[in-house]
Amino acid sequence: MQYKDLSKKELIAILSDEYRKYYDYKNLGLSYDMTRGKPCSAQLELSNEMESQKLLKGYSSISNQEVRNYGVLDGIPEAKKLMSEMLGVGTDEIVVGGNSSLNLMYDLLVRFMLFGTGTEGCKPWCKDEKIKWICPVPGYDRHFLITEKLGFDLIAVPLQGDGPDMDMVEELVKDPAVKGLWMIPKYSNPSGEVYSDEKIRRLASMKTGAADFRILCDDAYTVHFLRKGPAKQLNMLEACKEAGNPERVFIFGSTSKITFPGSGISAVCGSEKNIKFLLSYLTIQTICYDKINQLRHARFLKDYNGILAHMKKHAEILYPKFEAVDRILKNELMDLGILSWTKPDGGYFISVNTLPGCASAVVEKAKECGVKFTPAGATYPYKKDPNDTNIRIAPTLPPIQELEAAIKIFCVCVKICSIEKLLEE
Amino acid sequence: MQYKDLSKKELIAILSDEYRKYYDYKNLGLSYDMTRGKPCSAQLELSNEMESQKLLKGYSSISNQEVRNYGVLDGIPEAKKLMSEMLGVGTDEIVVGGNSSLNLMYDLLVRFMLFGTGTEGCKPWCKDEKIKWICPVPGYDRHFLITEKLGFDLIAVPLQGDGPDMDMVEELVKDPAVKGLWMIPKYSNPSGEVYSDEKIRRLASMKTGAADFRILCDDAYTVHFLRKGPAKQLNMLEACKEAGNPERVFIFGSTSKITFPGSGISAVCGSEKNIKFLLSYLTIQTICYDKINQLRHARFLKDYNGILAHMKKHAEILYPKFEAVDRILKNELMDLGILSWTKPDGGYFISVNTLPGCASAVVEKAKECGVKFTPAGATYPYKKDPNDTNIRIAPTLPPIQELEAAIKIFCVCVKICSIEKLLEE
Repeated sequence: MQYKDLSKKELIAILSDEYRKYYDYKNLGLSYDMTRGKPCSAQLELSNEMESQKLLKGYSSISNQEVRNYGVLDGIPEAKKLMSEMLGVGTDEIVVGGNSSLNLMYDLLVRFMLFGTGTEGCKPWCKDEKIKWICPVPGYDRHFLITEKLGFDLIAVPLQGDGPDMDMVEELVKDPAVKGLWMIPKYSNPSGEVYSDEKIRRLASMKTGAADFRILCDDAYTVHFLRKGPAKQLNMLEACKEAGNPERVFIFGSTSKITFPGSGISAVCGSEKNIKFLLSYLTIQTICYDKINQLRHARFLKDYNGILAHMKKHAEILYPKFEAVDRILKNELMDLGILSWTKPDGGYFISVNTLPGCASAVVEKAKECGVKFTPAGATYPYKKDPNDTNIRIAPTLPPIQELEAAIKIFCVCVKICSIEKLLEE
Repeated sequence: MQYKDLSKKELIAILSDEYRKYYDYKNLGLSYDMTRGKPCSAQLELSNEMESQKLLKGYSSISNQEVRNYGVLDGIPEAKKLMSEMLGVGTDEIVVGGNSSLNLMYDLLVRFMLFGTGTEGCKPWCKDEKIKWICPVPGYDRHFLITEKLGFDLIAVPLQGDGPDMDMVEELVKDPAVKGLWMIPKYSNPSGEVYSDEKIRRLASMKTGAADFRILCDDAYTVHFLRKGPAKQLNMLEACKEAGNPERVFIFGSTSKITFPGSGISAVCGSEKNIKFLLSYLTIQTICYDKINQLRHARFLKDYNGILAHMKKHAEILYPKFEAVDRILKNELMDLGILSWTKPDGGYFISVNTLPGCASAVVEKAKECGVKFTPAGATYPYKKDPNDTNIRIAPTLPPIQELEAAIKIFCVCVKICSIEKLLEE
């Protein structure tokens, strides 16, 4: 029974029933926050052992560097090994950074703005009249914000379940003002999709108008599977090297959602030439990143298999939450034709699409009832979803009972807003 | 007996004697590194307790924030309190950052370049034809490097034992292209001088041609005394507020040389308006700094008195080293008229001046003998000391026996190079 096939009378009957439920919930005076992709307490507990002093017996890296003092700009060897295994690059293709990979992305774009990309014959981007940047949608608001504030024109390109619409991308990049694109190749935020190897190859090999075209590939969820091990995927740097465009991509990653968000370690990867370029400017900016924290992480997580074993524990906590959301959405909304949603194999989000023009209303309605979702539109450049349909659900933080209550309220709000929309037409 | 009053014959006799000593040292095959102001192992041991897990029992800040998760851009309250006490500002006038105050300075200047200073009617600095920047000399090479790489014209202004030549500064800042200056107000790197309150007032109140003139005040050694407690000094932000120029200064500090260099916490201070400006851009750049490390520091150092007690332990390790250098320089070179040097009350350096045209030769000579000093010229913009006289001695890192040997070799090199210079004339 699809809502669109019901008579106005039938819709009004459902609406009154849903409003009853809505006010029942509202009277509970709930206050749930589902806005951000934060790990929950149980996940944080998994890494407490990292703060154990016995882990730090001896403050020397394997190459005998004193980690408590200044020095070692590119990261201690054991941290470089750990992060390069995770991100699928060589140890000469990585710099291990501080607590924030987002900061590494910002730094890199700022460097492009002020100093250029190191590509022969190309000037610093701040000397360009206009820079355009491709943003696959729905996407990560923090990415879009950086490029927006740097003054780039953001161009939305739809994701298709296996990466962006590549015909559109290939057409757009002919314009020399288009300097790059954002991508989250695996378990993308918020769609959860995994880029296909074919699309990764097209991104790596497409002909671009700009000689200094750059892809910022945020592999934030590369080991963040929910059921069985992480999806296999062609490495973007590998693909770029094969295509003869080794300098095209920088890959980013972090342990933010592996150990402690805000107290993890990050990494940026690229061709050896790109890494040399990066270090030549990084050395102006800082003396070194926090090597004690790098050592702590390397000793705690050990190696790639250690990371996977640790991520399995996260998955055991998170999978039931994703399942619960899916189950409730199915129970409440299946076949009503008013909401579609993703069922991701990894990552931190479920992406839903309402009827056109309903998303903001749903988020507003839920907020009035004490349940905060990420503002509708946040997943689009300039926070403007042209169809007002996409909402990002972040199921990880709340305890499961809260999560279930919040999603039930969400479903009521979806029903109410959809019916009100249909009645208007 | 001054060398300049000796006959050539007398000088040659001394020279041959010093060369004998030089080759004796050289045959020892030493390898000492005196290039950077790094704490020594004994100093690092002072903070090992910071890594004790019992310090981190409970991962909540005093305001009940979970420090292991995302959030809290401006720093946890206890860290803000600690750092604001140390830097003499209010808790609304500070942001506590990551492991590097140098990075905070770089970030701020980059922000000025790309987004401006937030001063009404002023544009981003990258839109300016030419930016000039005042560099008190001798100074810190890392400061000069940032402003050099950003393309500023660096103008050297001599320090006079109590801060820069203010007549010269006041004249220079009339030029609207002069956008700011570096300063290290206390135990300056490398001169060790403490800016006088009078000069601080003049810096705060001088009339500048640029409406968005900014002082980057790196209070890196604010509690780094060598004998009795830190020098009292008028706070630069206080002075700027009094002078009606509250937005003129940003003050920086860190625990790099209090706990662990590279794994400390940093802070940037400014007027409330400036802090709001800063946070409005910082929020683009990162989600938060490492709050676990902030908590670790706040619990370990406790408060300002805790910091002072801790710094006393550092002083007990460092003072004998500074004394040893002074004693050897006195023994070897007193009254020869070929070297002057500072005897600082705090900080990390002894600054020496050779006869004009000798500094590079001395550093080179010492290097050939296995003792590395900071390259001559490093304390000047563009690494060019116009008189080639200044050398920065960093006595903190080597064990005292090594330090003594290194300084004795240094003295031999000073004698040789001075005589060779005098003989040329």
